[in-house]
Amino acid sequence: MSIKIGLIGAGRMGKVFAHTLAFTVSEVELLAVADVNLQASQEVAQQFGAKYAYSDYHELLGRDDIDAVVIVTPTATHAEVIQAAATAGKHIFSEKPLSQTLEACDQAMAAVEKAGVKLQLGFMRRFDPAYRMAKQRIDAGEIGLPVMFRSTSRDPKRTSLEFARRENSGGLIMDMGVHDFDLARWLMGSEVVRVQTEGGCLVYPELKEVGDIDNAMINLKFANEAVGNIDVSRNAVYGYDIRTEVLGSKGGLIIGKLQQTALLVMNQQGVTHDTVPYFMERFGEAYAAEIKDFVSCILEDRPPSVNGQDAKMATAIGIAATLSLDENRPVLLSEIA
Amino acid sequence: MSIKIGLIGAGRMGKVFAHTLAFTVSEVELLAVADVNLQASQEVAQQFGAKYAYSDYHELLGRDDIDAVVIVTPTATHAEVIQAAATAGKHIFSEKPLSQTLEACDQAMAAVEKAGVKLQLGFMRRFDPAYRMAKQRIDAGEIGLPVMFRSTSRDPKRTSLEFARRENSGGLIMDMGVHDFDLARWLMGSEVVRVQTEGGCLVYPELKEVGDIDNAMINLKFANEAVGNIDVSRNAVYGYDIRTEVLGSKGGLIIGKLQQTALLVMNQQGVTHDTVPYFMERFGEAYAAEIKDFVSCILEDRPPSVNGQDAKMATAIGIAATLSLDENRPVLLSEIA
Amino acid sequence: MSIKIGLIGAGRMGKVFAHTLAFTVSEVELLAVADVNLQASQEVAQQFGAKYAYSDYHELLGRDDIDAVVIVTPTATHAEVIQAAATAGKHIFSEKPLSQTLEACDQAMAAVEKAGVKLQLGFMRRFDPAYRMAKQRIDAGEIGLPVMFRSTSRDPKRTSLEFARRENSGGLIMDMGVHDFDLARWLMGSEVVRVQTEGGCLVYPELKEVGDIDNAMINLKFANEAVGNIDVSRNAVYGYDIRTEVLGSKGGLIIGKLQQTALLVMNQQGVTHDTVPYFMERFGEAYAAEIKDFVSCILEDRPPSVNGQDAKMATAIGIAATLSLDENRPVLLSEIA
Amino acid sequence: MSIKIGLIGAGRMGKVFAHTLAFTVSEVELLAVADVNLQASQEVAQQFGAKYAYSDYHELLGRDDIDAVVIVTPTATHAEVIQAAATAGKHIFSEKPLSQTLEACDQAMAAVEKAGVKLQLGFMRRFDPAYRMAKQRIDAGEIGLPVMFRSTSRDPKRTSLEFARRENSGGLIMDMGVHDFDLARWLMGSEVVRVQTEGGCLVYPELKEVGDIDNAMINLKFANEAVGNIDVSRNAVYGYDIRTEVLGSKGGLIIGKLQQTALLVMNQQGVTHDTVPYFMERFGEAYAAEIKDFVSCILEDRPPSVNGQDAKMATAIGIAATLSLDENRPVLLSEIA
Repeated sequence: MSIKIGLIGAGRMGKVFAHTLAFTVSEVELLAVADVNLQASQEVAQQFGAKYAYSDYHELLGRDDIDAVVIVTPTATHAEVIQAAATAGKHIFSEKPLSQTLEACDQAMAAVEKAGVKLQLGFMRRFDPAYRMAKQRIDAGEIGLPVMFRSTSRDPKRTSLEFARRENSGGLIMDMGVHDFDLARWLMGSEVVRVQTEGGCLVYPELKEVGDIDNAMINLKFANEAVGNIDVSRNAVYGYDIRTEVLGSKGGLIIGKLQQTALLVMNQQGVTHDTVPYFMERFGEAYAAEIKDFVSCILEDRPPSVNGQDAKMATAIGIAATLSLDENRPVLLSEIA
Repeated sequence: MSIKIGLIGAGRMGKVFAHTLAFTVSEVELLAVADVNLQASQEVAQQFGAKYAYSDYHELLGRDDIDAVVIVTPTATHAEVIQAAATAGKHIFSEKPLSQTLEACDQAMAAVEKAGVKLQLGFMRRFDPAYRMAKQRIDAGEIGLPVMFRSTSRDPKRTSLEFARRENSGGLIMDMGVHDFDLARWLMGSEVVRVQTEGGCLVYPELKEVGDIDNAMINLKFANEAVGNIDVSRNAVYGYDIRTEVLGSKGGLIIGKLQQTALLVMNQQGVTHDTVPYFMERFGEAYAAEIKDFVSCILEDRPPSVNGQDAKMATAIGIAATLSLDENRPVLLSEIA
Repeated sequence: MSIKIGLIGAGRMGKVFAHTLAFTVSEVELLAVADVNLQASQEVAQQFGAKYAYSDYHELLGRDDIDAVVIVTPTATHAEVIQAAATAGKHIFSEKPLSQTLEACDQAMAAVEKAGVKLQLGFMRRFDPAYRMAKQRIDAGEIGLPVMFRSTSRDPKRTSLEFARRENSGGLIMDMGVHDFDLARWLMGSEVVRVQTEGGCLVYPELKEVGDIDNAMINLKFANEAVGNIDVSRNAVYGYDIRTEVLGSKGGLIIGKLQQTALLVMNQQGVTHDTVPYFMERFGEAYAAEIKDFVSCILEDRPPSVNGQDAKMATAIGIAATLSLDENRPVLLSEIA
Repeated sequence: MSIKIGLIGAGRMGKVFAHTLAFTVSEVELLAVADVNLQASQEVAQQFGAKYAYSDYHELLGRDDIDAVVIVTPTATHAEVIQAAATAGKHIFSEKPLSQTLEACDQAMAAVEKAGVKLQLGFMRRFDPAYRMAKQRIDAGEIGLPVMFRSTSRDPKRTSLEFARRENSGGLIMDMGVHDFDLARWLMGSEVVRVQTEGGCLVYPELKEVGDIDNAMINLKFANEAVGNIDVSRNAVYGYDIRTEVLGSKGGLIIGKLQQTALLVMNQQGVTHDTVPYFMERFGEAYAAEIKDFVSCILEDRPPSVNGQDAKMATAIGIAATLSLDENRPVLLSEIA
C-alpha cells in the first residue's frame, strides 16, 4: 500500500520534507503541493515529482486520493490548517508548534479527535539518534530515577526583528525553548508544574524595541519533585549549540556535540575543531526519521509518537515561562492550562 | 624574609594545608599547629616540622613570632577564629565560608579592618588553572560581554545526615553552591541581584528528615541584566562533577572535565574512560596555589585576591537561594544583604 | 543537461550508488542497470526508476543514449569492464581498486586514454568532509611541510575466508590498506618510494590456511624524505576504526572519530560512548559526494579528481607492501612500477 | 626504618628528584648530594635539607650511612656511576638509559649482581597512572591477546645540536624512542625481535650536519608475531605529544592526551583547547611515583619494577633501530644482543 501525501507549504523547510517524502520514504507518494505562492508550489511539485500544485491548500484537501498531509506553513497558521485537514479526513503531520495559544491547540485537537485522524507534531529531536538512544536508556532504567534536567538551545545569530515579535515567533523563549519543553516532559517522564524565568537583552539592543530578549534561563519544577533548567540564547556566535543532560539516581546522560567534522587541527594556538553550523547539519537525519515514523504510524494504525497533547503542553510551558519573565515571578502551569 | 605561620585546625584538610605550607611554599615556615584535639595537633606538627603544638588556638595566637594563620576549623567557628586572629594582629587565610550568617561575616570583617591585617578566603577554584585561565580570557575581552553563566557542582554521594543539617553545613545549597556563587560574581563581573530556587529530595529520603534536599537548580539574575543558573546535586554516582560555562557576546568558555586518567578503553560496549573521583583529585593543585597567593599577597603587601566582601556575598547568595526554596519565590539580594 | 547513467553491478554497494544516482544527484538520470544476476538487476532498476535492466553489461554499454557508467562489480572484473566501457565511449566511475595487477591497470588506462573518456576511481575518503578539509588545510600551508603520515584502518571483524584469499581481495594489506595508500600520496603530496611490512596472524588462525594475516604495520618512505606508517587490522572488535594523522613542520592534523552517536553515558563504570559501527555509517556521505563530483567533472569537462594513475599507484604500493611481507625486506616501488 | 639516600647529579632533573626525596616520600632521608659542580651540589643540599654536599660522587659513595643512591648524571656516565655505587654496596635508582652501549649495560648489570644490590631504572612512564592502568587492564585480560602496538613520542622543538650528536644523546631514535621501546616490551608482554626504520631530516636541516634526523618511523615485530610501530619527531610545534595504543583480540586501549587545562574556548574559529607543554607537565607525578616504588622495593626487599635487563633491551632496540636507519634494512635483535 502506498500512502498518498499532500504537502502544504513549499518554503525552505517544505522542500526538506518534499525531499524526504519523494526519496527517503518508500511507502509514500508525494501527490500534491500547496503554497500561497503558486510558483513555489509548482517548482517543488516539479522537482520532487508531485502531480498537482495549488495555491490554495483547501483545493489540495479537497482531493479524495490524498490520505495524509504534511503541514509546513507559517507557525500562526498551523492550527487552522490542521483543523481544515482533520475536517477533510486527512492524517496530519504538522511542523511544531501546534499553536502559540492554548485555545487554538484545543480547537485543533478537538477537530482531530472528532475526525478520528492521526495528528503528529514535528518535535524532531525525539527522532535524533542521540536523543532517541537517551530515551531508551532512561526507559530501561539505566540511570535510575531521572531527577535533574538541563538543556541548552543556542542559535549562532539573532533572528530577524520581524520574526522576533511575539505575535510571530512567540518570542525567544517560545521559539527557542519549545523543543526543550518537549524534551523535558519526554525524557523526565513527569509533567512540568512550575517555571521561573530570568532573561535579558544584552547583545542585540534592537531586540528590545520589538519586545524580545536574547538570553534566558528557565527553571523547571516537575510533578514528581524533580528539577530542571533550560537556557536559550541568540548569541552563540561559535555555532548551533544544542545539548541536554539528564541526571538520575544511578547515573547520567549528556546528549549533544560541539563538533561537526572529525578533524583536529593542532598548532601553537592549541587543538581546534569546528562546531555544528546550524540546525540542518544537526537534525537533518531526524527530520527524515520523524516522517518515516509518521508513515509507519498510519500503516500500522498506531497512535502517533508525538501527539496534540504533547504539543499543547510544550506551548503551555512556553506561555508560562514567558509570563514568568513578564511578571518576575514563578508561574504554575495550573494557572494557565 | 620568611613568614611564620600558625595552622589552626589539624583535621583532614588541615593536613593538606600543612603539607603545602611545609613543602611547597618556600617563603614560609610552619611554626605552630593548634587543634582542640591535642594529639592531632602534635601529630601534624611532628609530621610537617612545626615546632609548637597547642590544643587552644588562643595560645597559638598569643605567640609574637607568628605572622599569619591558616584557619581550617569547622565552618561554624570560622568567623570567631578570624576575629580572634585579627585582634591578635595576624594575617589570616581561612577556609570558606566566612560564616553562614551575614552578621558574623560583618563582625569578622570589621575586626580585620580594625586590625589592618589581610584576610583571604579559600575559594580555591579561582586558583585552578582552568578557572584562572577562563578569568584571564574574559578579562582580555575574548568572549565579549559575559551574558550567561552556568555552573554544575555534583558530589558522587550524599554527605552525613549530621552534616546535612542547616545548622552544620547550611544545607545542600549553601554547602555545594557556595563555590559557584563566588564563581558567578567573579567570572561575570557583576553582582547577583535575584535568585530563584527549585529543589527536591528524590534520591535520599533520609535527607528530608534532617531538613535537606539532594538536588537543586538556582536561577540567577545579575545587576547588568545577565542571567545564570547553578545546579547542585548529591547523587552524581559517576564521580565528582564540576563544570562551569560562560557565554559571552563574542564566544563562550566551558571549564571542567569528566575524565581523570588519560586512558580510553575500547571494547564491544563502546569507548570508556574514568571520571574524576573527588575534590582533591580535581582541586589539589588549587589548594596549594591559593596558599602561595596568600603568602605573596603578604610579601608584596597587596590586597588579598579573595576578600571578606567576596566571602560575604557568596554567603548572602546562599542565604537568598535557600530562602527562595523555603518560600517558593524569587528572592532579591537586597532583601537580605 | 541531464547525464544518462548505466549502473553495472547491482549488489549491496550497487544499491547504494543507485540510490545516490536516483535521488541525490539532480543532473543525472539512472537509465539502465546490469548485473549477471538478472533478478537483482531488475529489482534495482525498478526500485530506483531505471528503465532498462540487463544481465549482460555489454548490452548496457551498447546503448547510445548512455553517457556514463558506474561500475560496482567484483574487484577482479573492474579493469575488464572499464576497458569495455571506454571502448564503448562511456565516461567511467569505477569502485576501487582499478585492478590488483599493474598490467591490468595499464591496459584499462590505455583504453581510457585512447577513447578520450573520463575515468574516476572510488577512493571515497577523499570526499569525506574531514579528509577533504584536511587536504585543504595542508594545501593552504597551515601545517607547513607534511613530514609524517600515520593511518589506521581497522575492521570490526574478519572477512570471509574466501574473500581473504589473495586472488580475491588481494589479502589484508591490499584490501584494507588501499585507501590509506591513496591518502598517503594525496595528503603528503609526495610519492611513496619504499615500503616495509611487518604482519602476523594472531587472532584468526583460520586466515593462515588461506594465506592471509590479520594485523600489519607498513612503514613508508616518501620521495621527499618524509616518513609514514599504516596499520591495518581485522580485529577492532570495538568498531570500524579509521583514523589518519599528518604531522607537518608547523602543526598537525588528526582525522577520524571513535564516536557515532552524540551521547555520553555516565555511571559507576565511568563515561561511555558508542563507536562507529561500519563503513556506511562513516563514509555514507562520501559515497554520494564522489558521485556528485564525477558528474560535475563531466558537466564541466574537467579532469577527474581521482584518476587511473592514482589508482594504479595505490595498487602498486599494495603490491610492494605485500611483497615486503612475503620476503621480509623493504621493497622499493621502483622494483615493481 | 628510614632509608638514607645520596643524590648524584644536581642539575635540573636532580632538583626534581631532590624535591621528591625531601618532601614526598616519607620513608627516606636525603642525606647527601654530589655534583661535579660543587656549588650546585651545595645549593640543592641546602634547599632540600641534605646534610652533606660533594663535588666527587665517590666521596658520597664512601659514606657508610648511605643506603641507596639516585643517579641523575649525564647519560654517558650512568653505567660507570652505577658500577661504582654497586661496588660500594648501595641500592641504585638511575635515570634512563642504563647506557647507550650494550657492553656497558652488561658491565653495570654484572657489578649490580655481584654486589647483590637492587638496581631500578627511571622508565617513569610505567608509573604514570594512565600507563599503569593500561598495563593492569592488559594483565587482567580485558583486551585479550595484545596484537598491535603503536606509540608516538614527539617533542615540541628540537634539542640542541650538541645534544643531538649520537655520542651524546644517541640521536633522535635512541633519545626519543627509548621510553617507547620499553613500553613496547612491557605492554605487549613479548620481546621485540626485528625492527625497521624510516627516517628523514625535513624540518631542521642543521641536524643533518651533526648526523641526526628529525622524524622517524620504526616498525616492530615481536617474538609472538605481534606487530608494532613507533614514531618520533622533534617538530610537534603544538606541544609535547605522547600517545600509545595497544590493540588486542578483544579490545583496545589508547593512552595519552592532547589537553592540559580543562578549558574549552568557543568562538567563530571553532572550539579550542591547549596542549601539554612539556614532559614535567605530563609526567611530573610519575617521577615521584617511581621513586616511591624504588623505596618500597628496598623496604619490602622485592625485585625492582624496572631492572637492568629491561633497560638493556630498550637500549638494544634503539641500537637496532638506528642501525636499520643507517643500513636501510630490517635488523634482527639477535644480530646485536
